[in-house]
Amino acid sequence: MSHAGKKRKLDKSRQDRLYFDSYADVTIHEEMIADHVRTNTYRTAIHLNSECIRGKVVLDVGAGTGVLSIFCAQAGARKVYAVEACSISEQAEKIVRQNNMDDRVEVIRGTVESVELPEKVDVIVSEWMGYALLHESMLNSVLCARDKWLRPGGIILPSKAELYISPICDPVVEDRLHFWYTVKEQYGVDMSCMYDFARKCIMNSDITVNTVTVEDVLSHPARFAELDLYSVTAEELRSVKGRFSCGSFGSAAVNGFCVYFTVTFSCSDKPQTLVLSTSPFKPETHWKQAVLYLDSPEEVKQDTLVTGEVCMYPSEESDRHICIHLEYAIGEEKRQSKTFSIPDWSSDSQS
Amino acid sequence: MSHAGKKRKLDKSRQDRLYFDSYADVTIHEEMIADHVRTNTYRTAIHLNSECIRGKVVLDVGAGTGVLSIFCAQAGARKVYAVEACSISEQAEKIVRQNNMDDRVEVIRGTVESVELPEKVDVIVSEWMGYALLHESMLNSVLCARDKWLRPGGIILPSKAELYISPICDPVVEDRLHFWYTVKEQYGVDMSCMYDFARKCIMNSDITVNTVTVEDVLSHPARFAELDLYSVTAEELRSVKGRFSCGSFGSAAVNGFCVYFTVTFSCSDKPQTLVLSTSPFKPETHWKQAVLYLDSPEEVKQDTLVTGEVCMYPSEESDRHICIHLEYAIGEEKRQSKTFSIPDWSSDSQS
Repeated sequence: MSHAGKKRKLDKSRQDRLYFDSYADVTIHEEMIADHVRTNTYRTAIHLNSECIRGKVVLDVGAGTGVLSIFCAQAGARKVYAVEACSISEQAEKIVRQNNMDDRVEVIRGTVESVELPEKVDVIVSEWMGYALLHESMLNSVLCARDKWLRPGGIILPSKAELYISPICDPVVEDRLHFWYTVKEQYGVDMSCMYDFARKCIMNSDITVNTVTVEDVLSHPARFAELDLYSVTAEELRSVKGRFSCGSFGSAAVNGFCVYFTVTFSCSDKPQTLVLSTSPFKPETHWKQAVLYLDSPEEVKQDTLVTGEVCMYPSEESDRHICIHLEYAIGEEKRQSKTFSIPDWSSDSQS
Repeated sequence: MSHAGKKRKLDKSRQDRLYFDSYADVTIHEEMIADHVRTNTYRTAIHLNSECIRGKVVLDVGAGTGVLSIFCAQAGARKVYAVEACSISEQAEKIVRQNNMDDRVEVIRGTVESVELPEKVDVIVSEWMGYALLHESMLNSVLCARDKWLRPGGIILPSKAELYISPICDPVVEDRLHFWYTVKEQYGVDMSCMYDFARKCIMNSDITVNTVTVEDVLSHPARFAELDLYSVTAEELRSVKGRFSCGSFGSAAVNGFCVYFTVTFSCSDKPQTLVLSTSPFKPETHWKQAVLYLDSPEEVKQDTLVTGEVCMYPSEESDRHICIHLEYAIGEEKRQSKTFSIPDWSSDSQS
């Protein structure tokens, strides 16, 4: 008996305070800074774009510990406004001072929607991406900053986000389900009738954040959506969708799909680009991949077409929580659909 | 940016429903059944006590999937009442039927406080232990069942619980803290000033549920409390306390204490006993150990005495959530104290 923290619900009136309070804990910042793919790609992108940054004014949206702001100052920015709503901004101030950047980096505690800057900015930098790109993401804040504070012709780092999907076969969950067939041998009690219940529980409509192994990916990933950060609107983010078509590598049982994203850094005047990828084919990041499990597995052979459409939209309960509606057809099978959300302990799904 | 589910709060009016709903998920039952130490010790204890069970009436408090009830039926019980408040009771019914035990095992959905049984029972069996023994434990329900339904002279399995404490040195958290000194070398930004903040965040007043490695334990564990399930009262559970004294094995920096428990199965008329131990010196269980971190580490040498007093009591917010008040003195240092609780996302500690 021990089930602490399994399913929790949230008093909605407290959501906003929580959102900004949760950053006060050091663990999430440690995880983000220690994510080498993330931090090094931002660092390299900022230094590669130093021509666009040198002597310019930068706004860092959701600055956290201020590390991206300091990268921008190191790249020659005249001034960096590091806007952070959470109390971690106090640490950002200390870090800025420790690096002797306090003449150039100004930490401002507040939401980017409410802060008043003394000037427009030439560059917006932000690490706004959440699980499945849009879960609890700060993209709306970045767009707000763009519309309010970015000078015409200014740049946004990163400037593009792309979403990908691929059918997968996750053998770990199948092993978990098989466990119930092994109980009789272990303890002399037949619990095989738990299999169906376990499948319903595990292959549920939660978006699972998990590391997908390369061998479990059953096709080349298909890009189903692209967001141009210079032009996308908050309204458009209320429904990010696209079709996909994947040809299966070989024979397997599809038991889910994996969704992941990339973001691309590029100066508008240069062909040189840099991509931060959360693909299962690339080194792991703290975002891992978003996994959508099907109710029951379906067989594919080599070149079986897996087609469909994905739609991502904010949940009714909270704008920050993402839902994914998936329609798919596997080979000649009829089209099916399933709607997923990240368990946020604020919905009534358990009632 | 990605901090889903870090710190959540709970609408208190929903606590009770949640408590019973959280069991509906299969994962916790899978974890409990797959915990070989737990399930095999119960199985062996029930079969060893078959003389006390054969032909008798058993009450299983918080039966879950019903596995302990079936063990009792296999040990010869005439009748087993498997009381379970959560919807997992529906699975328990199926499992009982699948094992052809429905003539002997009766699954009853309800709390043991409210169910009406047609008869008194000879044996109470329950796996009621939570993290740190008492966190979200069902012990109060077991005591209620004992007082209401156990025939005079009846037996309780297990019949005794003991609590232990030991000073530890956890090098993993020290490595985590040291991380902030490595950022400059990795990314060219000095973040060493985060060290103090990180220590405050990590060495906080949360009870951490973690696996303590044998090498990290700095003394023989000291028993500080014992609960006799035949006699302990709900009132006594409101303050479970005791003193301890440990002699350090060697030179080390104490940065925390680990608390764990054992429960003992014995028939009143037999000397033969069986112990389910969650000691770091024994094979791991899903309970792991409860770790209490000190604000700052303190040096010990061989035979340095570490003494103190532990008091465990329910939190003000919820009877099911445990607090641990620790008073300790290390060698000649003056006595210190710190109060811990398991983060339950229902307190206001983050505000």
